[in-house]
Amino acid sequence: MKPSDRQVAEGLLFTDHYHLTSAQLYFRLGLHERPVQFDFFFRRYPNYGDHQAGFCVFAGVEWLLDWMEDAHAGDREIEYLRGQTTSAGDRLFDDDFLEWLRSDGNFSSISIEAVLEGRVVHANVPILVVRGPVAMAQILESPLLNHLNYQTLIATKAARIRGAGHDRPLLEFGLRRAPGRGASAATRAALIGGADFSSSEGISHLLGYPPKGTHGHSLVQLFIAMGEGELGAFRAFAEAYPDDCLLLVDTVDTLESGVPNAIRVFEELKRKGHRALGIRLDSGDLAYLAIQAAAMLDEAGFPDTVITLSSSLDELAIWQILTQIEEEAPRYGVDPHALINRLVYGVGTRLVTSGSDNLDGVYKSAAVEGEDGWQPLLKVSESPAKTLNPGNKRIWRVYDRRETATVDVLAAASENIESAPELELHHPVREDASRTLTRDEISSVEPLLVDTLKEGRRLLEPATIREMQERGRADLARLDPGVRRLVNPHVYHVSLTRELWELKQRLVGEMTSGG
Amino acid sequence: MKPSDRQVAEGLLFTDHYHLTSAQLYFRLGLHERPVQFDFFFRRYPNYGDHQAGFCVFAGVEWLLDWMEDAHAGDREIEYLRGQTTSAGDRLFDDDFLEWLRSDGNFSSISIEAVLEGRVVHANVPILVVRGPVAMAQILESPLLNHLNYQTLIATKAARIRGAGHDRPLLEFGLRRAPGRGASAATRAALIGGADFSSSEGISHLLGYPPKGTHGHSLVQLFIAMGEGELGAFRAFAEAYPDDCLLLVDTVDTLESGVPNAIRVFEELKRKGHRALGIRLDSGDLAYLAIQAAAMLDEAGFPDTVITLSSSLDELAIWQILTQIEEEAPRYGVDPHALINRLVYGVGTRLVTSGSDNLDGVYKSAAVEGEDGWQPLLKVSESPAKTLNPGNKRIWRVYDRRETATVDVLAAASENIESAPELELHHPVREDASRTLTRDEISSVEPLLVDTLKEGRRLLEPATIREMQERGRADLARLDPGVRRLVNPHVYHVSLTRELWELKQRLVGEMTSGG
Repeated sequence: MKPSDRQVAEGLLFTDHYHLTSAQLYFRLGLHERPVQFDFFFRRYPNYGDHQAGFCVFAGVEWLLDWMEDAHAGDREIEYLRGQTTSAGDRLFDDDFLEWLRSDGNFSSISIEAVLEGRVVHANVPILVVRGPVAMAQILESPLLNHLNYQTLIATKAARIRGAGHDRPLLEFGLRRAPGRGASAATRAALIGGADFSSSEGISHLLGYPPKGTHGHSLVQLFIAMGEGELGAFRAFAEAYPDDCLLLVDTVDTLESGVPNAIRVFEELKRKGHRALGIRLDSGDLAYLAIQAAAMLDEAGFPDTVITLSSSLDELAIWQILTQIEEEAPRYGVDPHALINRLVYGVGTRLVTSGSDNLDGVYKSAAVEGEDGWQPLLKVSESPAKTLNPGNKRIWRVYDRRETATVDVLAAASENIESAPELELHHPVREDASRTLTRDEISSVEPLLVDTLKEGRRLLEPATIREMQERGRADLARLDPGVRRLVNPHVYHVSLTRELWELKQRLVGEMTSGG
Repeated sequence: MKPSDRQVAEGLLFTDHYHLTSAQLYFRLGLHERPVQFDFFFRRYPNYGDHQAGFCVFAGVEWLLDWMEDAHAGDREIEYLRGQTTSAGDRLFDDDFLEWLRSDGNFSSISIEAVLEGRVVHANVPILVVRGPVAMAQILESPLLNHLNYQTLIATKAARIRGAGHDRPLLEFGLRRAPGRGASAATRAALIGGADFSSSEGISHLLGYPPKGTHGHSLVQLFIAMGEGELGAFRAFAEAYPDDCLLLVDTVDTLESGVPNAIRVFEELKRKGHRALGIRLDSGDLAYLAIQAAAMLDEAGFPDTVITLSSSLDELAIWQILTQIEEEAPRYGVDPHALINRLVYGVGTRLVTSGSDNLDGVYKSAAVEGEDGWQPLLKVSESPAKTLNPGNKRIWRVYDRRETATVDVLAAASENIESAPELELHHPVREDASRTLTRDEISSVEPLLVDTLKEGRRLLEPATIREMQERGRADLARLDPGVRRLVNPHVYHVSLTRELWELKQRLVGEMTSGG
């Protein structure tokens, strides 16, 4: 795509066709400014590599707000829509609708409440709520989902990978396998979820992180072709970057050539007063090679150099490598914990593509404002679990006496559960499942949604990526370890209050009897 | 991301950090203009949903060329690089390197040969070859892989899905689950691979396709809340779009409410002289509901309306639905073939995320130009299958007497296999596997790589998406049905000529003995 075409592809028209035809329909009926509420939530945790997550890390909001601020119907958009035809060959969009779109086709009338980016969030909880005129709230659906689904998916993956690596540094290396220019969103989300750095140059700059990297195999190959061998390549690299000397040791033979050559160069650096950074292993049995390389580096007097691992890593591969190191390292005289504490992980493909799944986040109309105030909306699905939770709601997180998050509660907007003497909680679907939490079982109750956008105006200072990382870490620390597990996690509880549950039952009854 | 920041994130700095540090290293050694060759190829077919493909559809080249034409080191790029520091706090990039980057940091010295976009391609065959000065050829690595890996992955998925649907229309609906602004690349690749239309508004326009869609559940919910019910919503939609009336029938109850209401509206349209388009099923047992809906539509006199299916579709889901229709439709008096021929598929998530895998395309240095001409380069991997095929090569596709593609052949650049009396073909890895094709077993031999870019200048008129689709269809028709299979396809043959095989053996011998 030519850069000049990006505005058309990624401005206001970065949405689905049916939103525009629906907006015109509302416009013709005079309904286009009717206030509605849409809830964003996801129905199930991503199933990374056949291992369903127990939590997500929310990301994407700030970039969504940037998009909303910029999107509008300019000349190119209007001209294009004017040229569209129906199957009968007539104009699809009328002039009066296009006039309205040119003047009002922006998001200055939209308000948003949202969970803060970086926080831990759960399935079936509305984590972002949109209110505004139906036509523009509808056009917002696809771009909103696009921003939130992908970044939340990748931030969650990053949090899982970092957890598996015992919080050792995690580098995002995914540009080459990332989905086109979605790469930038992937890097941002990976950093929010817990990656420490990225190899990607431009986006690192924009996000305020220095990019990181080593060198390529091709550098070594070129020096071999010039008759200077791997050692010549390592020396040239060390000379150019004496204080950032991380050497890729697997081009020829990791243990026979790469590590011994790296050690020679580290010794030369040391004599010149520089401290070598370490080595990178990018193929083969990473656990075995890391143990052998650590033994060689230790013996040569470089116990503090890092060993960076890369090559098809994800949370399960890292878990397996650490398990193998714990079992095998002592046999070779290497302290497994010292080795684990010098590891750095470079994760590319399986971080930016998430390994295998998507986030199924949806944007569902929950209420419409009529003459009598907000009126709840419902869609009764053929599957009870997909029947929506209606109306204007508040979302609360309840902490138990250990200060552990124990349940996210969906309540009616009018309820204040902070002052309730006890909480009667209902399973969102199963009629027979309810329980009561008494006040002394609860240490605190926190509203999750924060006013974020008020009629197009941002209410919050943009947070830094580091602040978002900190929110995630604080939330993860307050999550039951069973919910954080990589495989078969406990299911985190999400419940309705009695009031919301009864509203839902009443609406389902009305809808299935009437229609 | 703010639009003004896109140039920094996605211009020349849409690359990995180590390419820039390597480029500076080459610059300091005076090697930066040494001509090199890099080959792009993938090692294995994507493993979509645990079913490895037997072929790929190549996509992404034209957008890569657009990117290369635009990328350069401007003021913001230089300023940013000037601010970067080493771990010791010194400047990372020197002024002389930055001066060179400002003047020569573009792709006007790069040449490319490539397989035409849209064509069927195979594992371990170089399908794009880059030649040019090493510094810029190296900086190109990550953006090149980014463009080609993702679009080829998605184009291939689209070809599989369209094949599974008996070539009935395929609509790409993926914007909401697509990876950020990678959505645009996803739509383009889906169209190249065989999708007929996309729901995504702006990118459809740029690619010259009218966007397609129905309406949302929220439209029906809103009309229900206003007391006008599903029928009121359908009537309003039919009135607004009488010639494009495709109704989403699953908001209340598909067979009890949605289809009967749709039929009433279709009858009203018919009386006004319009032809209803059809219905869309978006939840539940799609095969069963399609059969029942078809029976109802047939009986009401609408046998030609389409039935659009959507909801977590991919090639295996479509295959299953068609199998179920063939088995069950006769039981309900519905002709299964007539039903299959009125189906349209809307595929979102599993098309634009590929369902589960990535394409592992790599960019490996194959040769360097020295005083004696092009010198082959090799990387000996610990796994024999990953050892590179060295040197400056030509790539041929050989068709057998049935005009079926039977093998892709990697040959030395100096060989002309068109005139060879017979072809001695070697397995790329296994020493004992070779065979000889005689002339009378061959109907034709085709060179696959086409001169595409000559020192930054495009040599080909950009093809339309439809031309690319045609290339893919023509290639698929000449592919053995066993290779096209969705599950457990035959492995397509890729071989080396004897000359290339002997070169590889010689280089491996030299490298492992010397180093």
